Amino acid sequence: MTPLIEYDQASPEVRAVYDDIMATRQTDYINNMWKALANHPPSLQRTWARVKELMGGPGAIDPMVREMIYIAVSVTNNCSYCIATHTAAARAKGMSEEAFGELMAIIGLANETNRLANGYRIEVDERYR
Amino acid sequence: MTPLIEYDQASPEVRAVYDDIMATRQTDYINNMWKALANHPPSLQRTWARVKELMGGPGAIDPMVREMIYIAVSVTNNCSYCIATHTAAARAKGMSEEAFGELMAIIGLANETNRLANGYRIEVDERYR
Amino acid sequence: MTPLIEYDQASPEVRAVYDDIMATRQTDYINNMWKALANHPPSLQRTWARVKELMGGPGAIDPMVREMIYIAVSVTNNCSYCIATHTAAARAKGMSEEAFGELMAIIGLANETNRLANGYRIEVDERYR
Amino acid sequence: MTPLIEYDQASPEVRAVYDDIMATRQTDYINNMWKALANHPPSLQRTWARVKELMGGPGAIDPMVREMIYIAVSVTNNCSYCIATHTAAARAKGMSEEAFGELMAIIGLANETNRLANGYRIEVDERYR
Amino acid sequence: MTPLIEYDQASPEVRAVYDDIMATRQTDYINNMWKALANHPPSLQRTWARVKELMGGPGAIDPMVREMIYIAVSVTNNCSYCIATHTAAARAKGMSEEAFGELMAIIGLANETNRLANGYRIEVDERYR
Amino acid sequence: MTPLIEYDQASPEVRAVYDDIMATRQTDYINNMWKALANHPPSLQRTWARVKELMGGPGAIDPMVREMIYIAVSVTNNCSYCIATHTAAARAKGMSEEAFGELMAIIGLANETNRLANGYRIEVDERYR
Repeated sequence: MTPLIEYDQASPEVRAVYDDIMATRQTDYINNMWKALANHPPSLQRTWARVKELMGGPGAIDPMVREMIYIAVSVTNNCSYCIATHTAAARAKGMSEEAFGELMAIIGLANETNRLANGYRIEVDERYR
Repeated sequence: MTPLIEYDQASPEVRAVYDDIMATRQTDYINNMWKALANHPPSLQRTWARVKELMGGPGAIDPMVREMIYIAVSVTNNCSYCIATHTAAARAKGMSEEAFGELMAIIGLANETNRLANGYRIEVDERYR
Repeated sequence: MTPLIEYDQASPEVRAVYDDIMATRQTDYINNMWKALANHPPSLQRTWARVKELMGGPGAIDPMVREMIYIAVSVTNNCSYCIATHTAAARAKGMSEEAFGELMAIIGLANETNRLANGYRIEVDERYR
Repeated sequence: MTPLIEYDQASPEVRAVYDDIMATRQTDYINNMWKALANHPPSLQRTWARVKELMGGPGAIDPMVREMIYIAVSVTNNCSYCIATHTAAARAKGMSEEAFGELMAIIGLANETNRLANGYRIEVDERYR
Repeated sequence: MTPLIEYDQASPEVRAVYDDIMATRQTDYINNMWKALANHPPSLQRTWARVKELMGGPGAIDPMVREMIYIAVSVTNNCSYCIATHTAAARAKGMSEEAFGELMAIIGLANETNRLANGYRIEVDERYR
Repeated sequence: MTPLIEYDQASPEVRAVYDDIMATRQTDYINNMWKALANHPPSLQRTWARVKELMGGPGAIDPMVREMIYIAVSVTNNCSYCIATHTAAARAKGMSEEAFGELMAIIGLANETNRLANGYRIEVDERYR
């Protein structure tokens, strides 16, 4: 496991990111993801900047839906860390148990039909090119 | 490529599925996906039944969002047939160009951070287990 | 695309592999896969040696079943070259259209349920550890 | 982890599926997979119906071979839950240690050659299109 | 296919990125990747900024090696666009045919052994945790 | 988990591979990977022969770089066993913490841009075909 960098061991540049995470999310908790990325400050800064903008900033997609999209990717890739944290985030943003069940069913269906399309070697219809 | 079964060559059981697809979608067009699956009627029936229910039936998730979830899986798996047809479906259900751009950005971000979590070997926080 | 090395342009070490492929498979045809790998003779030799042994040599698994296992991996990874050539090989070894349809259905099911297991974060039962 | 629904906490519709699983498999044991899916009864019903039909019903592919195909997909996707349970199922249906070793070797070979085909960018031979 | 935005149709913000790409790479050619991303200017800007920094900026890893790492990921994911363009980039930065052949062999080996580790369900040695 | 075969329980053919591993690596430690593969001696022999040649033999790619390529594949596939052992190997061969951070960043970037290329359905430029 990568050592986790706690706030009081952190360099000023890392603390600045931790402070922004806590202020943005209105929490005093920093996820292990950030404490691990802190081992390479440029990655911590770049990754947080994009997560802050794409998952929490203004946009055309509802924030809860953004988390469901993130879960769809993470479940398909089997990233247990990402599944655990983003499922919690989606629930915090209002995803119901019913919606979670449907999300899993759609993810499963797409993973199945993707392979049927591969295996049957289906040419894209003229109209969808 | 798998040969495509056209309506007039199709068996009664296959025609029944084609008829249901056309009636449900209010179109006279059958995608190549269905014409290829028709080579194995049980797969055609099972797959259409689930697509009809999960993508088009009543549920807690907006139909346009279901297509975006489907796209997230298909882009992650690189299924070009599924990307082409479901991007068209999401647009037909109202996905804006702005939302498409954000969808791609979130899919890209999740595929990136999934690997950062893998490579840094990050343990799931106690609170998210 | 990688340039394909034809028999008459090939070095003696590459020709020796081509000769063994043709003798083993009792054909005068060399697939593009081998003609491409011939650009790096050690890879051509190592890969052919293992394909010859694992797919065609003596073993506990029926040769047609070996091709079906190969297809299951290739469809899951969406390798169109491998799907095309090994589906042809499986049919040549006796896979029926009915078996092909069931193979695709099982591959689809497993790709679906793999994601349900990921997304629901299911702990392995004590008895299966 | 998703909470597991035990038989005595389960709703009648969930119990009906559990009863069918136990009757079909002639066991009194319900895998964690089903106890987790029971949190979304429609997913439990749909998934069990397809597993029952495709893995255990009549068909052109030997039931042990179906499990080996399932393992090939699960190993390629790295689904540890599915690998553990279906390896146990394949052994229960007669897979020998020798066959397991060959299965792993073929899965490994296909995962390797899939990438060689990708990296060398090999065009599908005319005859295999 | 996504429509490609040519320089003379491009907005000032897109042209600014195109200009920086051409200046940085000392070329007058813009790859289709950038012309497609230009449909969503924020994605064009974010993606180019990171590619410029991570692939071309100062760092501890040799630029040719960075391209080989990129190829290893792209071949594993079967992204034909990325394989084609980054193989060209690696060659332009000095990758020999011999090194390309070894790169493909190592990518194939790792994809194989990853699955052996999955399928044999091997616990990480105490010393490597 | 697969039972691990220790040296003193091992057959002569397995001991011969263990002896070669220890001699080649100048260590008295055998990784769990080999002790698990020992359950199928032909797989142990074939896999060790290729790892010895491709990862440790003479070649055009620096041994530390070979490990970084291996890590890129293993992180993309999320093989935790392979990530743990090959990250240790890369460090033993001289990979700095700075290089590790950059490696992770490039792997993340490639996994992201692979999906942007998929989702935007970008045609390969004429010059890169």
